[in-house]
Amino acid sequence: MKFVGQLDQAAEKNKSILCVGLDIDLSRIPAKLLSTDDPIFFFNKEIIEATKDLVCAYKPNMAFYEMYGLYGLSALIRTIEFIHEQEQLVILDAKRGDVGHSSAAYAKAVFESFKADATTVNPYMGHDSVKPFLDYQEKGVFILCLTSNIGFKDFQAAGDGEPLYRSVAKHVKEWNHYGNCGLVVGATKPEELKEIRKIAGDMPILIPGVGAQGGDLEASVKYGGKRAIINASRSILYAADPGAEAKKLRDEINKFR
Amino acid sequence: MKFVGQLDQAAEKNKSILCVGLDIDLSRIPAKLLSTDDPIFFFNKEIIEATKDLVCAYKPNMAFYEMYGLYGLSALIRTIEFIHEQEQLVILDAKRGDVGHSSAAYAKAVFESFKADATTVNPYMGHDSVKPFLDYQEKGVFILCLTSNIGFKDFQAAGDGEPLYRSVAKHVKEWNHYGNCGLVVGATKPEELKEIRKIAGDMPILIPGVGAQGGDLEASVKYGGKRAIINASRSILYAADPGAEAKKLRDEINKFR
Repeated sequence: MKFVGQLDQAAEKNKSILCVGLDIDLSRIPAKLLSTDDPIFFFNKEIIEATKDLVCAYKPNMAFYEMYGLYGLSALIRTIEFIHEQEQLVILDAKRGDVGHSSAAYAKAVFESFKADATTVNPYMGHDSVKPFLDYQEKGVFILCLTSNIGFKDFQAAGDGEPLYRSVAKHVKEWNHYGNCGLVVGATKPEELKEIRKIAGDMPILIPGVGAQGGDLEASVKYGGKRAIINASRSILYAADPGAEAKKLRDEINKFR
Repeated sequence: MKFVGQLDQAAEKNKSILCVGLDIDLSRIPAKLLSTDDPIFFFNKEIIEATKDLVCAYKPNMAFYEMYGLYGLSALIRTIEFIHEQEQLVILDAKRGDVGHSSAAYAKAVFESFKADATTVNPYMGHDSVKPFLDYQEKGVFILCLTSNIGFKDFQAAGDGEPLYRSVAKHVKEWNHYGNCGLVVGATKPEELKEIRKIAGDMPILIPGVGAQGGDLEASVKYGGKRAIINASRSILYAADPGAEAKKLRDEINKFR
């Protein structure tokens, strides 16, 4: 089944459009886990077990695994296997993108070596840099459009003419031959999200930036519309009770749907 | 010493602005190496030994190592150690970029876990996504500006107003407080390279796209000016005699300097 169908099923089953971002930070995980032989994996395992009936997907960000070198990446592989054993989806947040043959290697890395169901891609280098990801027709490809950080002002929303983020949304709409494209739009930009949803049709939109980054939850859910995916990471992972925190956020999101 | 000083020394010592891109492809390496316990490393080692007096740096592209999962990445670490043992520089071509705290994790990955001397960064997410890399003041940070692939047309050179690549070059000039910024400009765009060099001052410009991608060598060297770095990958790695091929290209470049 194509990713978008799997995503719809997962959202239906758990009545949830919440995605939990697995942004590992060894300095913040419980001390008892640090003495195990695989602290990153066991931390993620606890989070996944506590939240797996409350989410539509998990989103590990590769940055936090690469930071710990080969150990971090082996823990990531083990985490992804565990998520799949729980019959949940993995959006591997990698923000890759390169010239064609290099992007093909990255696509192979995320979909075959790391076995992600979906990934994030940076559009700066244009269509031939994104196409090798799209050629995995059953996988999901979320292209960065308007990001949640302050730096969106520098290029994405700058200039006198059509803003870059809008041009990206329009291009991605054109690139969506296999129905496997999605967009990334920060929760900190509700008005633009509304506009992007109009361009994107029923494409999935991954919306990070609620929680720690202070995005607007109600507006994100409302304007994100059908196939919005609301991501929260640190506000759940490092809560006193991650399961309870995820349930609270899932239910709050559902109030606005 | 800061990266730019190391680069100047390396270029002076080997009378070379040639950078060899280590874009590994197990399907193209000599059969005798496939039976060793670390074919990627031994292939790179042969290339490095044959070319180390002819280059100013090596540029492994992370895509081709990630593609082979943990094995590929461990061979990359061993390759980088070997390059440093030969007293040569490593530009780790990773094209990373993310929101601030995630970019900080990527910067830690490339500079501390993988021990690169310099890296490439994607500017799409703006200043706060690039800053964590720049904060490693002794390291080099090459920001994608105008890339050698056909997809440059989609966003980098599109629109009615100032093209994105020019805006990126101007912003990077502003961001260069520690003198550790560089730019990536494809050899396939000589006229724009000339224009970007004027904006960039004496910043290093990494120029891929000669060789397999058909860029204009003479114009790249001429317009790249002082601190141009000409990268070639497959045309050297998979030549019958990589050392001879590198020497030929180094000497050809020097004719135009």
